Amino acid sequence: MGEYLTKYHKTFEKDQFAKTSGIKLLEASPGYAKAEMVVQENHMNSVGVVHGGAMFTLADFAFAVASNSHGKLALAINAEISIFKSVKSGVLTAVAREISLHNKLGTYLIEIQNENNEQVAHFKGTVYRKNEIMNFD
Amino acid sequence: MGEYLTKYHKTFEKDQFAKTSGIKLLEASPGYAKAEMVVQENHMNSVGVVHGGAMFTLADFAFAVASNSHGKLALAINAEISIFKSVKSGVLTAVAREISLHNKLGTYLIEIQNENNEQVAHFKGTVYRKNEIMNFD
Amino acid sequence: MGEYLTKYHKTFEKDQFAKTSGIKLLEASPGYAKAEMVVQENHMNSVGVVHGGAMFTLADFAFAVASNSHGKLALAINAEISIFKSVKSGVLTAVAREISLHNKLGTYLIEIQNENNEQVAHFKGTVYRKNEIMNFD
Amino acid sequence: MGEYLTKYHKTFEKDQFAKTSGIKLLEASPGYAKAEMVVQENHMNSVGVVHGGAMFTLADFAFAVASNSHGKLALAINAEISIFKSVKSGVLTAVAREISLHNKLGTYLIEIQNENNEQVAHFKGTVYRKNEIMNFD
Repeated sequence: MGEYLTKYHKTFEKDQFAKTSGIKLLEASPGYAKAEMVVQENHMNSVGVVHGGAMFTLADFAFAVASNSHGKLALAINAEISIFKSVKSGVLTAVAREISLHNKLGTYLIEIQNENNEQVAHFKGTVYRKNEIMNFD
Repeated sequence: MGEYLTKYHKTFEKDQFAKTSGIKLLEASPGYAKAEMVVQENHMNSVGVVHGGAMFTLADFAFAVASNSHGKLALAINAEISIFKSVKSGVLTAVAREISLHNKLGTYLIEIQNENNEQVAHFKGTVYRKNEIMNFD
Repeated sequence: MGEYLTKYHKTFEKDQFAKTSGIKLLEASPGYAKAEMVVQENHMNSVGVVHGGAMFTLADFAFAVASNSHGKLALAINAEISIFKSVKSGVLTAVAREISLHNKLGTYLIEIQNENNEQVAHFKGTVYRKNEIMNFD
Repeated sequence: MGEYLTKYHKTFEKDQFAKTSGIKLLEASPGYAKAEMVVQENHMNSVGVVHGGAMFTLADFAFAVASNSHGKLALAINAEISIFKSVKSGVLTAVAREISLHNKLGTYLIEIQNENNEQVAHFKGTVYRKNEIMNFD
């Protein structure tokens, strides 16, 4: 894990909601991010499977890391998630990759897989890129 | 808060992720739900505003309550959220209402407002309704 | 139909794809539009119901009229549609209304109903608002 | 182009709206489809670029072919499109691939490229799969 990721780590360690949700950043590079969430009791919804909100948060975190990677502050304007499988335990991994980047807008696909590499959910998000610098130092 | 909501409360008190996120159910009736989240430090993302995942979770919780209200187990198949405002503090309220109900599918709109009744986000979600009964007792 | 709508009509009469699809503008005002499509043989898909693309086009047209109504050129960046009913005949009406407007972004909900006022589809779209003027003269 | 595609062609030649929109099926196999649209005057919107409805229709057509490929009637329940580039001329190609298939539900990604292999739009759609057989004979 090089200097680049170290700077990212410092910035995204400030993400309180991701921390509360037990999400960890694994990899980051321009337009790309990978994060994981080990499924725990407090991720469950009222019917005993991982809450849609927890899956969304995992994907949204990877989306935030990837979309802020170019140094301009990127704010999510919309996002959608399709959920293919109910999850009761294991490890979920989200990989975010950039599919479009303009001066003011960027779009990202995020795939969530379980520990058997089965696709659990698919997320797409768009950011509005402000002129403010996202300071990673 | 009558017997109906009492049964709901008991069921949705089992929602660990909503509880961890500080979300409370305020109202529920067939095809409808209202929930709130008092903004706290642990909802913040790395740039100091409420995490998209926290807003999504609030809306998703109201969506789950409204879509399971008819007694059939309803699982989210997809959902999307548009975010209009960054939020730093205050109280967020999500109201879910049903816009379509079929035997196997249901669709819901969820609006999130702040304490000044400004619209902060708009969420739409679709469920697949299983044949299993959602037991509220 | 006042002067305002007349200017709109002239502009949106240039919409070749809407014309080809048999779509007519009924009403327009800032942040609002209403359009209709009388269902015809050439709207059908391969299983004999109105093509999702035709419904989307109707909603997208109302979305374009409403989002360009403030005089700044507004380009769709994303849109999604939920379809609740198959349609074989009759008249479809789309009503677009603004739910959020910022300097650079705007979001609109569009509801499609049939001639019995039943909701057939629900569309949400977001535009990026350029600095160029949309000249209605 | 083998027997399989020939049967498909016959079925999807009945798609009147795709025909009106100048869309052609190029390839089809289980869970997959490729279609193209040569940009023409009647695809334009009121500001002289290809109408979002025309792009959506191209993607939706590929989505319909791919999702009906397993022989069960598949009806779109929702779809969303992100548009990255305005298009004024050339050839647009849509490729649909399956990312999830259940007994009752299927989800597909459709990418639209221009003749320079630049990504112009990204579409995701979900179908509800009925018990009726889609007869390709």
